[in-house]
Amino acid sequence: MNYQQLYEQIKAKKSFLCVGLDSDPKLLPECLKGVQYPIYEFNKAIIDKTAQYAVAYKPNLAFYEAEGVAGWIQLEMTLKYLNENYSEIMVIADAKRGDIGNTASRYARAFFEKMNFDAVTLAPYMGSDSVKPFLEYEGKWSVVLALTSNKSANDFEQLQLESGEPLYKKVICEAMTWGSKDNTMFVVGATRPEKLAEIREYCPDHFFLVPGVGAQGGTVEEVAKYGLNSHCGLLVNSSRGIIFADSSENFAVVAGEKARELAEQMAPYV
Amino acid sequence: MNYQQLYEQIKAKKSFLCVGLDSDPKLLPECLKGVQYPIYEFNKAIIDKTAQYAVAYKPNLAFYEAEGVAGWIQLEMTLKYLNENYSEIMVIADAKRGDIGNTASRYARAFFEKMNFDAVTLAPYMGSDSVKPFLEYEGKWSVVLALTSNKSANDFEQLQLESGEPLYKKVICEAMTWGSKDNTMFVVGATRPEKLAEIREYCPDHFFLVPGVGAQGGTVEEVAKYGLNSHCGLLVNSSRGIIFADSSENFAVVAGEKARELAEQMAPYV
Repeated sequence: MNYQQLYEQIKAKKSFLCVGLDSDPKLLPECLKGVQYPIYEFNKAIIDKTAQYAVAYKPNLAFYEAEGVAGWIQLEMTLKYLNENYSEIMVIADAKRGDIGNTASRYARAFFEKMNFDAVTLAPYMGSDSVKPFLEYEGKWSVVLALTSNKSANDFEQLQLESGEPLYKKVICEAMTWGSKDNTMFVVGATRPEKLAEIREYCPDHFFLVPGVGAQGGTVEEVAKYGLNSHCGLLVNSSRGIIFADSSENFAVVAGEKARELAEQMAPYV
Repeated sequence: MNYQQLYEQIKAKKSFLCVGLDSDPKLLPECLKGVQYPIYEFNKAIIDKTAQYAVAYKPNLAFYEAEGVAGWIQLEMTLKYLNENYSEIMVIADAKRGDIGNTASRYARAFFEKMNFDAVTLAPYMGSDSVKPFLEYEGKWSVVLALTSNKSANDFEQLQLESGEPLYKKVICEAMTWGSKDNTMFVVGATRPEKLAEIREYCPDHFFLVPGVGAQGGTVEEVAKYGLNSHCGLLVNSSRGIIFADSSENFAVVAGEKARELAEQMAPYV
């Protein structure tokens, strides 16, 4: 999926919503207990009810890996379902991988070839070696961690460098030279809207993947105010606030309503 | 496995060798093509011939994930084989995970509960949230990336902070406050032996996991000279130089010889 296709989908749906598939087996509705592939059935139901409001899905790999082989099987099933039924929607592997070149190229193969994800989140600590192998895939995206929404993002991401800039700014400016707006996005947390405005100054064209709306305290309005660019340039993620909004047999319908509410908040900005 | 047990094993084997199971299916010996679980059979043969020289094994997750479900199955089989036959040997998941707290706890579950790894490599970019959930497991280890051996480690790891120290030093000094020498190690590349000496000054007691010996240019002698502490404090990793030293039917025997050669270089320092 390229930049223009992503933007066209955003305009068509009047939404820049990414639904996080943090499908924790412990939190699945009672009605799915006992079925053979509960995570997959859950995802399928959520996807069917939210797809008209979502431009991206983002499975969080940890929740699948924690189930071992059974989790990996259901992740592959989820990808297949998305590819076959909603190929226009971007699918992001929230994997936060980061390793040396020959290893990174194997991760790229895992996510882009084996499972046909459109994008993968990547940790920048080890430098360009960790990202460049992913950029070799046409139509695929690297989503590089910049300024995250968690509390301990202050430990290192916001450290001031001798050069006078914070680490996350250096990461963004360096990573912008590895690829382009057509294959690179950055993770910028919604809990720091004033930082979104600052980052837009030196990174005007790239898409930002923005977690932290809802449970973590950020709002669509603030994120849009500070983060929008001429091609929207935002994917705002919500996970638990949508997928676990209800635990009855009606869970998917309620998830759809929550997704619609967020999309309605986004519509004026598209 | 605790600090003392690891040290006892090092003394008993007169070795601080970690064998990296970067078991790339494309590089497996011809004789294993066509068997049902080639990666597992390869690992099993390598393990049996190197176990007397190795105090740790380190499967690199990327090479398993790149094979999808089949790779994940063979990783679990490898862990089971190690746990059942060589429970005294440390097994490190080279996964370089790093995420927010609730996600990190799921990764911890995947590696420590589901697969019974003894240790996992972790990326520090997002701060303490990414590491602390792993430290809650008694007898398990977090191996935090500090100064890696790859070329682009210079991009960020060595950046000078306003406080006058390089980023990797800040990472080490912060992470030392999250846990202790009994549950935290650091990755320090063998390609920068002078840095090993510098890091030992402010981090005297922790174990270092040292990649980069062999193919990448580091030597056992230099690493030992600058990195040893009173309890050895080193795990020196070699992957391709051992496991892919030979591609004939004799591959495991040759791997055993390569492991023995490295262990012999280590013996004088134990």
